[in-house]
Amino acid sequence: MDADLKQDIYNQAIEWIREAGDRIRESIGEPLTIDTKSNPNDLVTQMDKNTEKFFVEKIKGKYAHHHLISEEGFGDKLNTMDGVVWIIDPIDGTMNFVHQKRNFAISIGIYVDGIGEIGLIYDVMDDILYSAKRGEGAYKNGVKLPALENKRLEESILALNSFWTCENRAVNEKKMQELVKKVRGTRSYGSAALEFAYLAEGILDGYVTMKLAPWDIAAGVILVQEVGGTTTKADGQPLDLLKDNTILSANQTIHEEIYSSYIELK
Amino acid sequence: MDADLKQDIYNQAIEWIREAGDRIRESIGEPLTIDTKSNPNDLVTQMDKNTEKFFVEKIKGKYAHHHLISEEGFGDKLNTMDGVVWIIDPIDGTMNFVHQKRNFAISIGIYVDGIGEIGLIYDVMDDILYSAKRGEGAYKNGVKLPALENKRLEESILALNSFWTCENRAVNEKKMQELVKKVRGTRSYGSAALEFAYLAEGILDGYVTMKLAPWDIAAGVILVQEVGGTTTKADGQPLDLLKDNTILSANQTIHEEIYSSYIELK
Repeated sequence: MDADLKQDIYNQAIEWIREAGDRIRESIGEPLTIDTKSNPNDLVTQMDKNTEKFFVEKIKGKYAHHHLISEEGFGDKLNTMDGVVWIIDPIDGTMNFVHQKRNFAISIGIYVDGIGEIGLIYDVMDDILYSAKRGEGAYKNGVKLPALENKRLEESILALNSFWTCENRAVNEKKMQELVKKVRGTRSYGSAALEFAYLAEGILDGYVTMKLAPWDIAAGVILVQEVGGTTTKADGQPLDLLKDNTILSANQTIHEEIYSSYIELK
Repeated sequence: MDADLKQDIYNQAIEWIREAGDRIRESIGEPLTIDTKSNPNDLVTQMDKNTEKFFVEKIKGKYAHHHLISEEGFGDKLNTMDGVVWIIDPIDGTMNFVHQKRNFAISIGIYVDGIGEIGLIYDVMDDILYSAKRGEGAYKNGVKLPALENKRLEESILALNSFWTCENRAVNEKKMQELVKKVRGTRSYGSAALEFAYLAEGILDGYVTMKLAPWDIAAGVILVQEVGGTTTKADGQPLDLLKDNTILSANQTIHEEIYSSYIELK
């Protein structure tokens, strides 16, 4: 992609993400219309849908040939990553949005022929924008983030939800429990996008989870890559942005150690 | 305690907690001197010690007859809660302080003859003060917090570190895993004081953990009580502020359900 066009898309995406964030903040105090999707804990609100529609209209209006994958289904059904593809989560961390009215984010990853070019994660309530363009580093509110430290596993803090240390269909929970005891500590914030952003920022050292959709990860993997980190499936295999993936994102030192010694997928 | 004296102590404690917070914020960018205590993950910094000494000097200077229990050992060795006792954690969430430079708090609980009268939790980097006086409600930056909703367990978000779903010496981890699957979600923020504060604020519905020191809980239990919540040992028994405790803090509906159906202490 031409550098000027990439810069134009980057600027435009930032303008839209901030506008969408403003709208959410303005109505954060209003009563919510909440539905559930695949299960009672898979929440969706009218705000998710409205925000997604906002992006669909903006993108299709200005970039008619771009494609769009998004959580609530107003985007395209794609079976290829050819061309320019926007992958959008209008509200990542909907449970936090509903229960906490903070700790959620808008996530936008922009891919060209399958290569992640632009990643934006906007912590709406804290008004913090994490942004990255491929090859140009990652930024937090315009300040460049340093490369990740290659900490040892014993000194690392992992983002890990306690669900994966319980018996489950995806991974050997006994090995996950060993991992919990090996690391310095674990945290769980309830937003995949923010967990990627915190990893890129260096306040977490790794992130392990067993099921994320493309819109949960599309921006985050670009941010993490730009600070020298690696994101793969939890067994170290390459991601497929058109499907759900297990996820292991971390600095390069612990990345291999985690998947080779602690992840046993079922 | 006389209401005027209580108000005086409350105002004074707020002045000191803010002054201590200012000092921490001013030096947050400086290199840290870090030691470990009981194990490699039990961190203490010079900032913990200096902040504690600040409080000891202030309190002993103005209130010579007050007692003081605090984390780093510059306070008194008490075997009774008689009189006025300040229970202080100079930096609650030291691992966050070291690794994240945010998500930590100063915690002060003030007890009179064993009754919690004043609770203050100061989120230093976000400059958010949670405060409570017994019988007068709990406040976030001066705005009164509403009474906790009595949500059902299926709709609740619990603060729970994944460590307690792994085999451990304190609790049957299988029952904890059942609890994880019962609730809507779990979170882990790495600061007991902030987890109590978030519970008081209603963005969490319960908090379960198996070992906290008096300074980790002294302020939090007062805040939670003032919004109608209940804090006990994890098996529902009364707390002992002079010792470590297992902890279950929650709205009254789920409190009993959790300890009667999901907590099996070893």
